[in-house]
Amino acid sequence: MNVTVSGRTRHFRTVTFDCRTNAVLLVEQRLLPHAFKIVPARDFRETARAIRDMIVRGAGAIGATAAYGLAQGARAFRGTNVAKFRQHVQDVCQTLKAARPTAVDPLNALNQVRAAMAAGETVEEQQALALAAAEEFAHEDVRHCEQIGRYGAKLIRDGMRLLTHCNAGWLAFVDVGSATAPMYAAQAEGKQFHVYCDETRPRSQGATLTAWELAQQKISHQIIADNAGGHLMQRGKVDLVIVGSDRILGRTGEVANKIGTYAKAVLARRHGIPFYVAIPLSTIDWDLKSGFDIPIEQRHEAEVLGAWGVAANARTSVTVNRPSISNSQSRRRFYVRVANPTSRALNPGFDVTPAELITGIITPAGIFDPRDLWASRRELGWAD
Amino acid sequence: MNVTVSGRTRHFRTVTFDCRTNAVLLVEQRLLPHAFKIVPARDFRETARAIRDMIVRGAGAIGATAAYGLAQGARAFRGTNVAKFRQHVQDVCQTLKAARPTAVDPLNALNQVRAAMAAGETVEEQQALALAAAEEFAHEDVRHCEQIGRYGAKLIRDGMRLLTHCNAGWLAFVDVGSATAPMYAAQAEGKQFHVYCDETRPRSQGATLTAWELAQQKISHQIIADNAGGHLMQRGKVDLVIVGSDRILGRTGEVANKIGTYAKAVLARRHGIPFYVAIPLSTIDWDLKSGFDIPIEQRHEAEVLGAWGVAANARTSVTVNRPSISNSQSRRRFYVRVANPTSRALNPGFDVTPAELITGIITPAGIFDPRDLWASRRELGWAD
Repeated sequence: MNVTVSGRTRHFRTVTFDCRTNAVLLVEQRLLPHAFKIVPARDFRETARAIRDMIVRGAGAIGATAAYGLAQGARAFRGTNVAKFRQHVQDVCQTLKAARPTAVDPLNALNQVRAAMAAGETVEEQQALALAAAEEFAHEDVRHCEQIGRYGAKLIRDGMRLLTHCNAGWLAFVDVGSATAPMYAAQAEGKQFHVYCDETRPRSQGATLTAWELAQQKISHQIIADNAGGHLMQRGKVDLVIVGSDRILGRTGEVANKIGTYAKAVLARRHGIPFYVAIPLSTIDWDLKSGFDIPIEQRHEAEVLGAWGVAANARTSVTVNRPSISNSQSRRRFYVRVANPTSRALNPGFDVTPAELITGIITPAGIFDPRDLWASRRELGWAD
Repeated sequence: MNVTVSGRTRHFRTVTFDCRTNAVLLVEQRLLPHAFKIVPARDFRETARAIRDMIVRGAGAIGATAAYGLAQGARAFRGTNVAKFRQHVQDVCQTLKAARPTAVDPLNALNQVRAAMAAGETVEEQQALALAAAEEFAHEDVRHCEQIGRYGAKLIRDGMRLLTHCNAGWLAFVDVGSATAPMYAAQAEGKQFHVYCDETRPRSQGATLTAWELAQQKISHQIIADNAGGHLMQRGKVDLVIVGSDRILGRTGEVANKIGTYAKAVLARRHGIPFYVAIPLSTIDWDLKSGFDIPIEQRHEAEVLGAWGVAANARTSVTVNRPSISNSQSRRRFYVRVANPTSRALNPGFDVTPAELITGIITPAGIFDPRDLWASRRELGWAD
């Protein structure tokens, strides 16, 4: 999406590929929102490291990064020996897989690229096919998000006040995002609306990433404490809620998402406010039978006991050093301890919202009642 | 309540009076939870400044501070001229009133002390009566909180998991507190229970003040993000919610309290969890006819956009310099900017919870259904 660099607004994706230098170019997400920087990963090992070190995060974004990483690794091979090339590609895949072992998107991405490469015979052919497949993977991620936007934008009317939780924006995908897709599409249609961003403690992805995205995209928005949404709903100031999801159960319509999503769904229901969840099809889990079976990650208590920020007088920097990495890290965030030093914290990272509280699931294939997912499973990419 | 100083546990009030030095002794609340310090206000001007500068905060605590400040000012008068003394007392009252002009408790406290002084004839008699009345004001605050504790403790059974929001603890009163009173009383009765403290963004009074109180009092507790309570309730991990209040409408039973209280009440109702509000009688507003008439303070957006903390490696200090003020402020909190620097925030400070969501109001006069306050108004100190 749009980022304003030195006064000029340009369009960026989180992940792109530079054929000339054989580098994967990534938005350095650890510096956001205090600095915007594009950094190159110059070989597949650097690309794997970028995934591991969270330079890039978000399901769609790390999938595309892995796909490009495989193409990058394949293209770096010198020679024509197909057997040696196959072994090399195997090594590249292992390295990329190991970067984020629990994520499913990089695996899907690598499988997709390797399947495409199988159609080539020579090393050169396979290298070309790898890059084409990686580009296709990234483009498809964007197309799916755009389709989410097309369906979701119909829900947004002029003058509406939306609320969103956490970050399911373009930074988590290659572009456009899931929960933000309807907003960007509605903006493109010329609609005027306002977005309340839950700050989303303890990691503050709403205050940092979503707010940054909306500011860059020039969408009217305000950050609110997670505590404030209920009050705004009670006073009639919220018309629509759209959030993303980490996992939706295809059999029950239950939605796992960032901690605090459930509370907002309960409040929205009390006030008759429509509550939508926007997802790509890869988010649907067709296996689990109950939301109680979704493992809720217990995260480190330091997240609750403190906060990451920059000195209050730090200025924002925007640098697009292409392809060299700048060393300036003066706006690096640091951690402060907020809480009583002799107290401990409990930090569940996610919660589960039952289908009955969800008005609809916005997918690239249309908007579905969460209780109808299973009945519509073929339409939604369910593989038997 | 208890504070452990140099390995020895001692009992403290937020406000006491030292007759020998004619000083008001205050817990320096701006240093908590990172340092515990008692500071003396040596004359009534320093006492007024301590109220204004938030060294002391909380309705009961500032009431008692004003009462002591008046006694302190009266006692500082040299001479026997009653007319001059009366003028001096007038000045003292003006100074103390001006320290926190919107608060009602200091006014009540000053009126109570002046009424008591009227029974004296000589300067010396009036000085003695002022101190006795101030002491009585403070003791009464403690007695009322103890009564809240006595009634509220009956709600707490062994093994229960409680949830509280913000700080309505002894730091906000002279001792014991309101929402914390049932916990301290239940502990004294030997009951075992666990408390989840909402961190209470944006000012984090739960993570800082309530958690500090409970840690000092050796009550089992954990800090949670405000987002986590709904999930814990859904998983059956919360048995009882007790919060304080800034204003309860005697006519409707509506409860104004720290932003986020309403969401917890809605969630508690959904899960059938009892939700109680603990208050002294001075919190009841007998005039307003609707919760929508309660002005909701819009606070500064910096609170939402950042956080106050100490360097992560700072050590806690406990100093009781009596009566001299120590200069060590190495654990002073500082502000970090968390949010996107180009975004704004909306920061309503309070919300209103309707009576239907509240199981009971715990008062020094017993536990009442919020819808019965008006019918019980004579019992609850309503003045015609």
